[in-house]
Amino acid sequence: MAPHARRFVSQGHLVDSGALTRILNLIVEEGADYEVVSFKLGKTNQDESQLEMEVRSGDAALLEGLAARLVALGCYERKPGEAVFRPAPREGVAPEDFYSTTHHRTEVFVQGRWREVRRQRMDGVVVLEHGEPVCRKLRDLRAGQPVLCGSSSVRLTPPARDRDARLFGFMQSEVSSERSVENAVRRIAEELKSIRTGGGRIVAVAGPVVVHTGGAPALASLVKAGYLQGLLAGNALAVHDVECALYGTSLGVDLSSGRPVDQGHRNHMRAINRIAEAGSLAAAVQQGVLGSGIMYEVIRAGVPYALAGSIRDDGPLPETITDMIRAQEAYERILENASLVLMLGSMLHSIAVGNMLPSWVKAVCVDIAPPVITKLADRGSAQTVGVVTDAGLFLRGLAAVLLGSS
Amino acid sequence: MAPHARRFVSQGHLVDSGALTRILNLIVEEGADYEVVSFKLGKTNQDESQLEMEVRSGDAALLEGLAARLVALGCYERKPGEAVFRPAPREGVAPEDFYSTTHHRTEVFVQGRWREVRRQRMDGVVVLEHGEPVCRKLRDLRAGQPVLCGSSSVRLTPPARDRDARLFGFMQSEVSSERSVENAVRRIAEELKSIRTGGGRIVAVAGPVVVHTGGAPALASLVKAGYLQGLLAGNALAVHDVECALYGTSLGVDLSSGRPVDQGHRNHMRAINRIAEAGSLAAAVQQGVLGSGIMYEVIRAGVPYALAGSIRDDGPLPETITDMIRAQEAYERILENASLVLMLGSMLHSIAVGNMLPSWVKAVCVDIAPPVITKLADRGSAQTVGVVTDAGLFLRGLAAVLLGSS
Amino acid sequence: MAPHARRFVSQGHLVDSGALTRILNLIVEEGADYEVVSFKLGKTNQDESQLEMEVRSGDAALLEGLAARLVALGCYERKPGEAVFRPAPREGVAPEDFYSTTHHRTEVFVQGRWREVRRQRMDGVVVLEHGEPVCRKLRDLRAGQPVLCGSSSVRLTPPARDRDARLFGFMQSEVSSERSVENAVRRIAEELKSIRTGGGRIVAVAGPVVVHTGGAPALASLVKAGYLQGLLAGNALAVHDVECALYGTSLGVDLSSGRPVDQGHRNHMRAINRIAEAGSLAAAVQQGVLGSGIMYEVIRAGVPYALAGSIRDDGPLPETITDMIRAQEAYERILENASLVLMLGSMLHSIAVGNMLPSWVKAVCVDIAPPVITKLADRGSAQTVGVVTDAGLFLRGLAAVLLGSS
Amino acid sequence: MAPHARRFVSQGHLVDSGALTRILNLIVEEGADYEVVSFKLGKTNQDESQLEMEVRSGDAALLEGLAARLVALGCYERKPGEAVFRPAPREGVAPEDFYSTTHHRTEVFVQGRWREVRRQRMDGVVVLEHGEPVCRKLRDLRAGQPVLCGSSSVRLTPPARDRDARLFGFMQSEVSSERSVENAVRRIAEELKSIRTGGGRIVAVAGPVVVHTGGAPALASLVKAGYLQGLLAGNALAVHDVECALYGTSLGVDLSSGRPVDQGHRNHMRAINRIAEAGSLAAAVQQGVLGSGIMYEVIRAGVPYALAGSIRDDGPLPETITDMIRAQEAYERILENASLVLMLGSMLHSIAVGNMLPSWVKAVCVDIAPPVITKLADRGSAQTVGVVTDAGLFLRGLAAVLLGSS
Repeated sequence: MAPHARRFVSQGHLVDSGALTRILNLIVEEGADYEVVSFKLGKTNQDESQLEMEVRSGDAALLEGLAARLVALGCYERKPGEAVFRPAPREGVAPEDFYSTTHHRTEVFVQGRWREVRRQRMDGVVVLEHGEPVCRKLRDLRAGQPVLCGSSSVRLTPPARDRDARLFGFMQSEVSSERSVENAVRRIAEELKSIRTGGGRIVAVAGPVVVHTGGAPALASLVKAGYLQGLLAGNALAVHDVECALYGTSLGVDLSSGRPVDQGHRNHMRAINRIAEAGSLAAAVQQGVLGSGIMYEVIRAGVPYALAGSIRDDGPLPETITDMIRAQEAYERILENASLVLMLGSMLHSIAVGNMLPSWVKAVCVDIAPPVITKLADRGSAQTVGVVTDAGLFLRGLAAVLLGSS
Repeated sequence: MAPHARRFVSQGHLVDSGALTRILNLIVEEGADYEVVSFKLGKTNQDESQLEMEVRSGDAALLEGLAARLVALGCYERKPGEAVFRPAPREGVAPEDFYSTTHHRTEVFVQGRWREVRRQRMDGVVVLEHGEPVCRKLRDLRAGQPVLCGSSSVRLTPPARDRDARLFGFMQSEVSSERSVENAVRRIAEELKSIRTGGGRIVAVAGPVVVHTGGAPALASLVKAGYLQGLLAGNALAVHDVECALYGTSLGVDLSSGRPVDQGHRNHMRAINRIAEAGSLAAAVQQGVLGSGIMYEVIRAGVPYALAGSIRDDGPLPETITDMIRAQEAYERILENASLVLMLGSMLHSIAVGNMLPSWVKAVCVDIAPPVITKLADRGSAQTVGVVTDAGLFLRGLAAVLLGSS
Repeated sequence: MAPHARRFVSQGHLVDSGALTRILNLIVEEGADYEVVSFKLGKTNQDESQLEMEVRSGDAALLEGLAARLVALGCYERKPGEAVFRPAPREGVAPEDFYSTTHHRTEVFVQGRWREVRRQRMDGVVVLEHGEPVCRKLRDLRAGQPVLCGSSSVRLTPPARDRDARLFGFMQSEVSSERSVENAVRRIAEELKSIRTGGGRIVAVAGPVVVHTGGAPALASLVKAGYLQGLLAGNALAVHDVECALYGTSLGVDLSSGRPVDQGHRNHMRAINRIAEAGSLAAAVQQGVLGSGIMYEVIRAGVPYALAGSIRDDGPLPETITDMIRAQEAYERILENASLVLMLGSMLHSIAVGNMLPSWVKAVCVDIAPPVITKLADRGSAQTVGVVTDAGLFLRGLAAVLLGSS
Repeated sequence: MAPHARRFVSQGHLVDSGALTRILNLIVEEGADYEVVSFKLGKTNQDESQLEMEVRSGDAALLEGLAARLVALGCYERKPGEAVFRPAPREGVAPEDFYSTTHHRTEVFVQGRWREVRRQRMDGVVVLEHGEPVCRKLRDLRAGQPVLCGSSSVRLTPPARDRDARLFGFMQSEVSSERSVENAVRRIAEELKSIRTGGGRIVAVAGPVVVHTGGAPALASLVKAGYLQGLLAGNALAVHDVECALYGTSLGVDLSSGRPVDQGHRNHMRAINRIAEAGSLAAAVQQGVLGSGIMYEVIRAGVPYALAGSIRDDGPLPETITDMIRAQEAYERILENASLVLMLGSMLHSIAVGNMLPSWVKAVCVDIAPPVITKLADRGSAQTVGVVTDAGLFLRGLAAVLLGSS
């Protein structure tokens, strides 16, 4: 017997996004049943579809858990009750049954209507501030702050799959390396151009492999040409960029000949020492110590950047933010209103950014290792386009297409 | 304007299989339009859905190509005409517009009704034999044989996604290595047990890495216990299995100590020489020269096997089939009526088998390299469950669960 | 003409370590010449070899750079002069020509004799404290502190390759996955046993993949049995370990069934919330909130641990050290006197540790991705033994051998 | 006690090649002892070194096995006896203690002097033909033919590591992808140019990934410009090259737009059908059916080629050699006198070629997967330079440098 039942509705591009498939399969996999009350398939590509169904199970707890997962797929209670907010028992602590956010667009049923949650991000909580729902990190909760509990008054809008295949949707979740990388470069170049034309913001997340693979000049030239509105990286990217600018090497390897020089790793320590002496990267640019490279162009162009420290850092450079809570805050500021994020060879920083980004922001992830891209996709960054190739080659290709250089 | 239009129908588990999503998206991506004439979503999980739609485009050629791709997704003309068969112009040559098969269940509209194609496989052609459609390889065409042309009288049934998540569907297209392999082993063991109980046939495709990673005793014990009804491999698997049985090494590495012994690669050449001297593997078993290992158990149990030669073979062993056309035929015979195929660490042979298998046959692909599994999925073997791990560890785990050994 | 010349000596196990090969090849690759003044090859395996040679080049700068690299290989000036120490111009800044350390055993020629540098680590500087050379990080330099400059009064002792192949040297730089992992497990188990018998310290560096792959119970049992004297990890390991202990899931995947449960990622946020509520991991253990898992056993056994924060952290947990400079210090304290370091599935933390460890400390690196191990080796951690396999399977194997469990 | 002793000599660039290190370590690892009778280290880079030593063990069998492995490293008996040749007991069968060849230059002590073995290859046997030692495959042995047994009258010359780092030795066993690929491309281009200037032969081994990644036009232009003297591939390379030439797709993906076209995989079957209709690739070129691509340029330029069949082939094309014994023979003919082999994205064919090539022939292996290169090196092709990148990008880079195109 299945005496427990709940009625859900969902609407939007349910079929082309695959949402309908996931919804029905989830119910069956969980061992519950459904009955479709009504379903209207959009007549044409422009029309939305509409679903109403009843979900049933003999097991109330199972139905409760299932309901929460259906909400994550864009279903919502046909007749939602008023959202329940309970006070945070302590600073940084939420009530036991707090609602944990996804990075999808979220609404909460407050005072009789759906209200959109501001500052959407993943793995956060929703609090009520001045009567409006806002996304906050657990650690930022103040004692007594009203925290959304349960998911029965929540409505998500997972991003519609980009339907115009000619623009950006072309490689959804493609990570195979057996494709021509040239096409990917050309299309991403078009996308960047169109974003810049429209006044959008492009933010790069870059690992030191960009420098090791000889991509620094290309990335620098893209910065100079105005194609970057933010740079998120770690200490290592800046160290090797400076090493390359000052000594022509990266991790002690001569970038023009490919041969190791001098004392193995010494140059990156010299680079750190030179910047420490100047006082900062910005000071080194001003003093003429640093006259080329990614950081040089970023500083000259006034592009905001954040270098997050890590446990493996040498130095670090003076601008590197060693406290991770402050580093996350700096990243978040730069990511605000980003139109597209270019993730270049850094799994650590890319995953960090993936958690901060709302799911409707586009992302391009370039890495020579397919598992990195798979891992990003695993964490729910569904808008990520993966390109399996060498970051240096990718950037040179991009610069060639956008700037006419080679 | 869009004066060209065709009307298609499709039915089945269109939503849970994702077919409906793929169908509508394809039309849009190709630049055509659709109008849903009717759509009935199955009320419950048991009910099928039904779609009828009109597809339109101003470009007749585009519509023609699109129609062919819609057929591949399970759509068919609402009012199919009689299938067109044209004579093969020459032996091994098909008419220019021949229909190239997928590995999905296929029907052709002949003499007023849908008839199922026999001997379904990928990349074949459909011929009429005694009035019935049969799948054949291009190279086997005889001059004048009637070959199916165009796709407007074809109807496919892509396999429904296995809906009972507790049996086999649990890991559809999962290839991440960040999952517990133990669960995969346990579930696959259950599946194998249930297949054997039901009298089904399990066929293994195995590469030499099975031996290098110490998996030979486990696979041999599974053979002995009746868990294998066919073995498909190359020369190398048998060579290293024999090397391991005779000298305890694999590619010159002592399998119990992990250290190289004697003259590097000499042992595998000695193994080949011993079998050549005996006359064959079967003779070596009879003469008592070969007394353990995978091939020993396979021969003792009378399990059919085929060793396909390859350009990289040493030897080869007497049983190795050096002609690839004959080797393919031998593989195909052993694969007939297979219930499940275990692909163990051999991309070459696994892809070969993937092309021969109808899409409704289950497959488990074990490889330490995620790209191998991605590649198999790329080629359309959608029923493939991927497990990213060491073949030796996987087989020992399987033997432990099925046979209680460790 | 080659008017510039310097005379170097070197001694030790020059041939079996490969040092002699590297020394002579380096000279030729750099475009310089050498003349062997004398060479005495050790008569037997116990005897050391001795080299004296003159290195010549027409280019003084080239010879200077070459000399520095020869020092890194264990050569030293036949008649070293007194080491030059120059005052640090500012806090955290070294003189331009400072000597950048490797992780090999290092001596400096001070007051007429070779003195060993204390607290050896990579990418540091050598300062004189109370007349003795000590290794310090650049950032810890005080203004005016005497810093070693140049390398002409430096003598390194790269670690002799472990000659007894039966102990630990068995897999030097082996990373191929085509070997039986079982052998590796067995030998590493023997090594761990012998270290514990001898009172040595085993430190583990572990990533969350240990939990995802089901390795947490095995690692916990090793801790309980006294096989761990330190644990270095990030926030994520502890979060997922707690998630697994409290809810049986890891990243929302049920570890016993392998199926996703409830709301995707919610459980790891609930785990963080529970620990935040308790106040700390230690408090959670005391309050009985946390009653199993890696962190539970580590806390119960009083094993020192450090959780380093990172830019991608959720939470973080109260014990997580969010400032990277403090985190590095905590790691360094736990690594003091380590006999062997087990690196389990975490490139970030393993590279950090690799930089802190003197080169004579043994390390075992377990990762399913060969490039991670290659990358560690690239950075000079030559004592690293790589095992390409799933961390969970490795740990269960280790526990089975050491504790008799499965 | 160690009553058994044998005296070996070795000479050559023992130190820079690393041979001396491997020799002494091997003895110790095997549990035997050595005493250096004399060792003369080459005074300068031009001078050879000379070693004489006595190897001792209490275990005669161990010493016998060790001796065989020392021979493989370039040691030989100080006073060799006359080589022992025993008649092959049967066609394709060698005496039990036959000598199994490596791919290094080999001499045998026959009639009082060292004579070089002709047609050197790996995993062969040495027979006496007209008084001269010649390398043959096991399967080609005729009954009664005299086969070399034991290794005590054998002398090998492993290739000296290329000492001029500026030419080709620059990347010995480098497989890391964290290097600038551009440098590799430039140096390989220089090497190819110098080989062509000197009248040397360049042979490519290419997999279909060359076409999938858009490298076909670049490779075709290199053929046209005279940079290829042989092409070794499988059926798939030719099929996809023809598919690309006729339809602009590769595996159904439009190479200029990167989007799938028409019916998935149909185009490669159409390509096979067109060539079957023409009768052969050569006929298709003559009839004007095939007018561009790799195979077109190869046929027009009269470059010898061999397409080896495999178990996974579709078709195959008429020129594909389906019998593996004949295919190996065809490969061997084309490889005769090759100066350099370019291995492009095909592990199967590259390993096959690695077994056929003497070790003194240079090889460049380009693959996006580091394990492929590791695997090639594992099999003893020590002259292999590995470049981890996309084959298409590599070829376009090479064409740009050599032909000035982009």
